[in-house]
Amino acid sequence: MSMAIVAALRHIVGESAVLEPAELGKRSAGAYRFDNLRAAALVRPANTKEVSDVLRWCHAHNIAVVTQGGLTGLVHGGDAGANDVILSLERMRAIEAIDPVQRTATVEAGVVLQTLQEAVDQHDLSFPLDLGARGSATLGGNAATNAGGNRVIRYGMTRDMVLGLEVVLADGSIVSSMNQLIKNNAGYDLKQLFIGSEGTLGVITKLVLRLREKPLATNMAFVGLDSFDAVAKFLKHADRALGGTLSAFEVMWQSFYQLVTTAPAKGQPPIAQNYPYYVLIESQGADRELDTQRFQAALEGALQAGLIADAAIAQSDADCQAFWALRDDVGQVMQGGLPVVFDISLPIAAMEAYAEGLRETLAAEIGDHKLWIFGHLGDGNLHVVVQVKPQNYLALRPKIEALVYRPLAACHGSVSAEHGIGLEKKPYLHISRNAAEIALMRTLKAALDPKGILNPGKIFEVAAAAQRASA
Amino acid sequence: MSMAIVAALRHIVGESAVLEPAELGKRSAGAYRFDNLRAAALVRPANTKEVSDVLRWCHAHNIAVVTQGGLTGLVHGGDAGANDVILSLERMRAIEAIDPVQRTATVEAGVVLQTLQEAVDQHDLSFPLDLGARGSATLGGNAATNAGGNRVIRYGMTRDMVLGLEVVLADGSIVSSMNQLIKNNAGYDLKQLFIGSEGTLGVITKLVLRLREKPLATNMAFVGLDSFDAVAKFLKHADRALGGTLSAFEVMWQSFYQLVTTAPAKGQPPIAQNYPYYVLIESQGADRELDTQRFQAALEGALQAGLIADAAIAQSDADCQAFWALRDDVGQVMQGGLPVVFDISLPIAAMEAYAEGLRETLAAEIGDHKLWIFGHLGDGNLHVVVQVKPQNYLALRPKIEALVYRPLAACHGSVSAEHGIGLEKKPYLHISRNAAEIALMRTLKAALDPKGILNPGKIFEVAAAAQRASA
Repeated sequence: MSMAIVAALRHIVGESAVLEPAELGKRSAGAYRFDNLRAAALVRPANTKEVSDVLRWCHAHNIAVVTQGGLTGLVHGGDAGANDVILSLERMRAIEAIDPVQRTATVEAGVVLQTLQEAVDQHDLSFPLDLGARGSATLGGNAATNAGGNRVIRYGMTRDMVLGLEVVLADGSIVSSMNQLIKNNAGYDLKQLFIGSEGTLGVITKLVLRLREKPLATNMAFVGLDSFDAVAKFLKHADRALGGTLSAFEVMWQSFYQLVTTAPAKGQPPIAQNYPYYVLIESQGADRELDTQRFQAALEGALQAGLIADAAIAQSDADCQAFWALRDDVGQVMQGGLPVVFDISLPIAAMEAYAEGLRETLAAEIGDHKLWIFGHLGDGNLHVVVQVKPQNYLALRPKIEALVYRPLAACHGSVSAEHGIGLEKKPYLHISRNAAEIALMRTLKAALDPKGILNPGKIFEVAAAAQRASA
Repeated sequence: MSMAIVAALRHIVGESAVLEPAELGKRSAGAYRFDNLRAAALVRPANTKEVSDVLRWCHAHNIAVVTQGGLTGLVHGGDAGANDVILSLERMRAIEAIDPVQRTATVEAGVVLQTLQEAVDQHDLSFPLDLGARGSATLGGNAATNAGGNRVIRYGMTRDMVLGLEVVLADGSIVSSMNQLIKNNAGYDLKQLFIGSEGTLGVITKLVLRLREKPLATNMAFVGLDSFDAVAKFLKHADRALGGTLSAFEVMWQSFYQLVTTAPAKGQPPIAQNYPYYVLIESQGADRELDTQRFQAALEGALQAGLIADAAIAQSDADCQAFWALRDDVGQVMQGGLPVVFDISLPIAAMEAYAEGLRETLAAEIGDHKLWIFGHLGDGNLHVVVQVKPQNYLALRPKIEALVYRPLAACHGSVSAEHGIGLEKKPYLHISRNAAEIALMRTLKAALDPKGILNPGKIFEVAAAAQRASA
């Protein structure tokens, strides 16, 4: 079957644009993965017309299509079966236009995030989406998964940065909705349907992205706090005192701070290691002198109000980089064990009790383990990491997932703040979404992809996909 | 037929909750309208369960349902036929919760915008959506039409302020998707489907809205500029120099400035009346002293760079109110004629040529008329007003619409930046949306409302609605 698919696809897009199973099987399955890709074929169209031709053929022949970006998604959202076709946009990497007046970029979906960041910087503009995988993640993948990252508190998720999309539907039809306007209420806002749908409703081929003026001044501090209540109050204080300039508000529970500021980690502790909570706070503005005055006044106000106990203020760009390096040194969770990594979100008022409860249930039910919590507090998004011994990993992982996810139902939290559902969190979708919501998702899936050929089995199960698989 | 409908609905929601045609016919059809409502019945459910019961009955009996909010929408999006049921949410006006830590408000859809603004102000919070109709417009209507307003440049449209929705679908099923988290990627973001769909896909009954910390300091100026190129450059300059604090950037072509600063208008001109362009610029921040320094530095920088010719800086809250009053004194366009009012959007680089071209075609084809242009330049949104003699109004209106809308196709503009399509702009939707986009809108409509009972005939025509109407 695979050879017939390869031959047919080569007829459409050319010999070198299609990889056979033996070739694609040499490629890694993605970030933090030990396995390699598998599929009946990997097809690399050169343009939207070829994407459309490929999809029309797969649709006619009832063959599943898994679209892949930079493979940095972490939730097995791009996994393919042995009989599926992988659609890679790696040859569609053109930055078609950067418009400094309208402040938009028009790009093909395969453009890597960092490539765009650097290109717009040349125009004194900024594309404010930023995340650790910036060097591999593609903009099509960012949109398909509604990527979040470090500055959501100021600029929103990828959804908030996409003005227009070109999409190819399951049957190969092309919907060009390349709006470049901030305000456009002419009918349904169709792009919203595809953003965050993880490749299950259409294939994003081009994007119009909103750019911002490049910030001219950055201020940062590392802050120690004595209680979670103080952390919550400090967020409100900082958000108000910094006006519109607050650009990051990252929290760390003590154990994570100690992990990334203690050897073998390379980071040095900017302040003492004995506070229960730490916050990395960043402000981006336009005037180095006035912004710095305001930033320092905001911290002094917090100190006087008893909200914060200590603060180290970055004195240079090198300090800023060192502060961010602590936050980003997530790799330390690999020390001495294997981690299960979560990206949950929940109301700020519920966080302290949630963390405490989790600590207790893990101690009672998991035995030997480590727990680290940190994340984008300003957005309600916590990263929870539970580390166990490698030999216990596979047996304990489902148990740990249940302990982390189950309490979210009661506090209206989400099993995925930013990574998406993919295959990994599919069993837990019902914790964050009720039956009526999932039924409506199925209605949309059935309307846009009645044969269920697009990234089947991801997010939720549909009847059509089951039929196709058994066909 | 009407009496049977009234009787059936009264059986569901009670006697006083249903108005007969004679009663509802005493109510105005809405803002700037001279006619009154008409319908088979107007039903006012007290809660979501009753909305569901009403829809289930109408669905079973193939009766069209037109949902109405504050009737301030301006595009005939809430017009009902003589055999339709009007669903009014006027009895669902509870502010259920305001959470100062999570910074959310949970409201029923009938809550008036200004009521919420005032309620959250008590908690030192802000709901930043603001528009002239704030005293009548409801939050359900704001969401259903994705309302914009004066501070989109800073806070986005209504879409950007909605975290969760409860919606009743055409068949009466309730989808509660009351997310209160800024980040939630657990499956499709269903609320996006209903925001801006003008009541054609479901009835919004409750909302979770995102609140912001209340700004502590406002700076404003009225600026005169010598060219449109300078206006575009001043926007970039101001956006950069004010960091994240720029909250409004409103442009006026000379004739509109003269209109609102000359008797019989009550406003006084803050600067001379002979500049070709004017900008009202506002910055909202956190520190009166530092923000004022920064604001003045930004204006001085623009003056030195030759971008602006003159500026009057507001010295008091009264000045700020007087500046906004000029911008909001749109009623002056009623002087001596009847206006046709537009809310188009287009790329900033295309605006000057568009305005000049429009001036020429109107002069050539419309004869005696007046033209005013002003709007939210920072969002690419212009309000165009063409005034003609009352006796010529009906004959000239379609001609004027064609002259305003047609040139938007070439520059990728939108026939509606913020008001929506309703009935009024339906003939022109194809100028801003291609056939594939409209086909996909029809696919969504058919999936969610296969009988076509929800606000039929609005935005675009669907086959099912035609069948229902003739049934």
